[in-house]
Amino acid sequence: MTRTRKLVLTNVLYALSDPVRLRIVRHLADEGDTACGTFGIRMPKSSLSHHFKVLRESGVIATESEGVKRINSLRRAELNKAFPGLLDSVLRA
Amino acid sequence: MTRTRKLVLTNVLYALSDPVRLRIVRHLADEGDTACGTFGIRMPKSSLSHHFKVLRESGVIATESEGVKRINSLRRAELNKAFPGLLDSVLRA
Repeated sequence: MTRTRKLVLTNVLYALSDPVRLRIVRHLADEGDTACGTFGIRMPKSSLSHHFKVLRESGVIATESEGVKRINSLRRAELNKAFPGLLDSVLRA
Repeated sequence: MTRTRKLVLTNVLYALSDPVRLRIVRHLADEGDTACGTFGIRMPKSSLSHHFKVLRESGVIATESEGVKRINSLRRAELNKAFPGLLDSVLRA
Protein backbone atom coordinates (compact mmCIF):
# COMPACT_ATOMS: atom_id res chain seq x y z
CA MET A 1 0.00 0.00 0.00
CA THR A 2 1.15 3.51 -0.74
CA ARG A 3 1.32 5.84 2.21
CA THR A 4 -0.92 8.85 1.87
CA ARG A 5 1.21 11.76 0.81
CA LYS A 6 0.65 15.41 1.46
CA LEU A 7 -0.13 17.10 -1.84
CA VAL A 8 2.29 19.91 -2.68
CA LEU A 9 1.22 22.11 -5.60
CA THR A 10 4.62 22.31 -7.31
CA ASN A 11 5.11 18.52 -7.03
CA VAL A 12 1.67 17.88 -8.51
CA LEU A 13 2.28 20.32 -11.39
CA TYR A 14 5.66 18.72 -12.06
CA ALA A 15 4.11 15.24 -12.07
CA LEU A 16 1.54 16.41 -14.63
CA SER A 17 4.12 18.19 -16.81
CA ASP A 18 5.16 15.16 -18.86
CA PRO A 19 3.22 13.72 -21.83
CA VAL A 20 3.60 10.08 -20.70
CA ARG A 21 2.52 10.86 -17.15
CA LEU A 22 -0.42 12.89 -18.46
CA ARG A 23 -1.40 9.92 -20.59
CA ILE A 24 -1.37 7.65 -17.54
CA VAL A 25 -3.48 10.17 -15.59
CA ARG A 26 -5.99 10.50 -18.44
CA HIS A 27 -6.21 6.72 -18.70
CA LEU A 28 -6.97 6.41 -14.97
CA ALA A 29 -9.49 9.26 -15.20
CA ASP A 30 -11.28 7.64 -18.14
CA GLU A 31 -11.00 3.95 -17.30
CA GLY A 32 -10.84 3.93 -13.51
CA ASP A 33 -8.42 1.85 -11.43
CA THR A 34 -6.00 -0.08 -13.61
CA ALA A 35 -3.44 -2.83 -12.99
CA CYS A 36 0.19 -1.97 -13.75
CA GLY A 37 1.33 -3.11 -17.16
CA THR A 38 -1.97 -2.61 -18.94
CA PHE A 39 -1.56 0.96 -20.08
CA GLY A 40 -0.40 0.09 -23.60
CA ILE A 41 2.47 2.56 -23.46
CA ARG A 42 5.48 1.37 -25.45
CA MET A 43 8.63 2.38 -23.66
CA PRO A 44 11.36 0.68 -21.61
CA LYS A 45 10.00 -0.71 -18.37
CA SER A 46 12.49 1.28 -16.32
CA SER A 47 11.31 4.56 -17.88
CA LEU A 48 7.68 3.70 -17.31
CA SER A 49 8.44 2.73 -13.69
CA HIS A 50 10.09 6.11 -13.22
CA HIS A 51 6.96 7.90 -14.46
CA PHE A 52 4.74 5.89 -12.11
CA LYS A 53 7.12 6.69 -9.26
CA VAL A 54 6.89 10.45 -9.94
CA LEU A 55 3.09 10.23 -10.07
CA ARG A 56 2.98 8.21 -6.85
CA GLU A 57 5.46 10.34 -4.92
CA SER A 58 3.61 13.53 -5.82
CA GLY A 59 0.38 11.96 -4.57
CA VAL A 60 -1.35 12.18 -7.97
CA ILE A 61 -1.89 8.42 -8.06
CA ALA A 62 -1.96 5.67 -5.47
CA THR A 63 -0.83 2.09 -6.02
CA GLU A 64 -2.24 -0.72 -3.94
CA SER A 65 -1.45 -4.41 -3.97
CA GLU A 66 -4.33 -6.77 -4.64
CA GLY A 67 -3.02 -10.31 -4.48
CA VAL A 68 -0.18 -10.42 -7.00
CA LYS A 69 -1.48 -7.42 -8.90
CA ARG A 70 -0.66 -3.78 -8.30
CA ILE A 71 -3.61 -1.51 -8.92
CA ASN A 72 -3.20 2.18 -9.76
CA SER A 73 -5.81 4.78 -9.03
CA LEU A 74 -6.08 8.51 -9.57
CA ARG A 75 -6.38 10.37 -6.24
CA ARG A 76 -9.13 12.51 -7.67
CA ALA A 77 -10.94 13.41 -4.44
CA GLU A 78 -7.73 14.38 -2.64
CA LEU A 79 -6.55 16.46 -5.63
CA ASN A 80 -9.92 18.19 -5.96
CA LYS A 81 -9.95 19.00 -2.27
CA ALA A 82 -6.38 20.35 -2.20
CA PHE A 83 -6.49 22.21 -5.54
CA PRO A 84 -10.09 22.75 -6.65
CA GLY A 85 -10.47 22.81 -10.41
CA LEU A 86 -6.85 21.96 -11.21
CA LEU A 87 -7.28 18.34 -12.28
CA ASP A 88 -10.43 19.10 -14.28
CA SER A 89 -8.73 21.94 -16.15
CA VAL A 90 -5.82 19.64 -17.02
CA LEU A 91 -8.06 16.74 -18.11
CA ARG A 92 -10.18 19.10 -20.21
CA ALA A 93 -7.14 20.52 -22.04
CA MET B 1 9.56 41.86 -27.94
CA THR B 2 8.81 38.26 -27.18
CA ARG B 3 7.32 36.29 -30.04
CA THR B 4 3.92 34.86 -29.28
CA ARG B 5 4.40 31.22 -28.42
CA LYS B 6 1.96 28.42 -28.81
CA LEU B 7 0.91 27.25 -25.38
CA VAL B 8 1.60 23.56 -24.76
CA LEU B 9 -0.02 22.11 -21.64
CA THR B 10 2.99 20.11 -20.44
CA ASN B 11 5.32 23.11 -20.93
CA VAL B 12 2.97 25.38 -19.00
CA LEU B 13 2.63 22.87 -16.15
CA TYR B 14 6.41 22.46 -16.03
CA ALA B 15 6.90 26.23 -15.94
CA LEU B 16 4.50 26.47 -13.00
CA SER B 17 6.05 23.52 -11.13
CA ASP B 18 8.80 25.49 -9.38
CA PRO B 19 8.33 27.59 -6.21
CA VAL B 20 10.38 30.55 -7.53
CA ARG B 21 8.55 30.59 -10.86
CA LEU B 22 5.21 30.33 -9.06
CA ARG B 23 6.22 33.29 -6.92
CA ILE B 24 7.00 35.32 -10.05
CA VAL B 25 3.64 34.35 -11.57
CA ARG B 26 1.75 35.24 -8.37
CA HIS B 27 3.56 38.58 -8.24
CA LEU B 28 2.56 39.38 -11.83
CA ALA B 29 -1.01 38.26 -11.14
CA ASP B 30 -1.27 40.44 -8.03
CA GLU B 31 0.75 43.48 -9.05
CA GLY B 32 0.38 43.58 -12.83
CA ASP B 33 3.19 44.17 -15.29
CA THR B 34 6.55 44.49 -13.56
CA ALA B 35 10.04 45.54 -14.65
CA CYS B 36 12.76 42.91 -14.39
CA GLY B 37 14.81 43.17 -11.23
CA THR B 38 12.01 44.36 -8.98
CA PHE B 39 10.69 41.02 -7.77
CA GLY B 40 12.61 41.03 -4.48
CA ILE B 41 13.72 37.43 -4.95
CA ARG B 42 17.16 36.81 -3.46
CA MET B 43 19.05 34.40 -5.66
CA PRO B 44 21.93 34.54 -8.14
CA LYS B 45 21.02 36.58 -11.19
CA SER B 46 21.79 33.66 -13.51
CA SER B 47 19.34 31.40 -11.66
CA LEU B 48 16.64 34.03 -11.74
CA SER B 49 17.26 34.63 -15.46
CA HIS B 50 16.82 30.90 -16.03
CA HIS B 51 13.45 30.94 -14.28
CA PHE B 52 12.27 33.90 -16.36
CA LYS B 53 13.45 32.10 -19.49
CA VAL B 54 11.42 28.98 -18.63
CA LEU B 55 8.34 31.12 -17.98
CA ARG B 56 8.85 33.05 -21.21
CA GLU B 57 9.54 30.01 -23.39
CA SER B 58 6.46 28.20 -22.12
CA GLY B 59 4.38 31.28 -22.95
CA VAL B 60 3.29 31.84 -19.34
CA ILE B 61 4.80 35.33 -19.31
CA ALA B 62 5.80 37.83 -21.96
CA THR B 63 8.68 40.27 -21.72
CA GLU B 64 8.66 43.50 -23.69
CA SER B 65 11.26 46.24 -23.92
CA GLU B 66 10.13 49.71 -22.93
CA GLY B 67 13.05 52.08 -23.45
CA VAL B 68 15.86 50.61 -21.32
CA LYS B 69 13.47 48.63 -19.14
CA ARG B 70 12.21 45.12 -19.72
CA ILE B 71 8.63 44.67 -18.61
CA ASN B 72 7.18 41.27 -17.69
CA SER B 73 3.52 40.44 -17.94
CA LEU B 74 1.43 37.36 -17.22
CA ARG B 75 -0.25 36.06 -20.39
CA ARG B 76 -3.47 35.60 -18.50
CA ALA B 77 -5.93 35.90 -21.40
CA GLU B 78 -3.98 33.47 -23.60
CA LEU B 79 -3.64 30.98 -20.73
CA ASN B 80 -7.33 31.22 -19.86
CA LYS B 81 -8.28 30.70 -23.47
CA ALA B 82 -6.00 27.70 -23.99
CA PHE B 83 -6.59 26.03 -20.61
CA PRO B 84 -9.74 27.39 -18.98
CA GLY B 85 -9.55 27.37 -15.20
CA LEU B 86 -5.94 26.21 -14.95
CA LEU B 87 -4.28 29.48 -13.98
CA ASP B 88 -7.03 30.37 -11.53
CA SER B 89 -6.81 27.00 -9.80
CA VAL B 90 -3.05 27.41 -9.44
CA LEU B 91 -3.27 31.01 -8.17
CA ARG B 92 -5.98 30.01 -5.69
CA ALA B 93 -3.91 27.17 -4.24
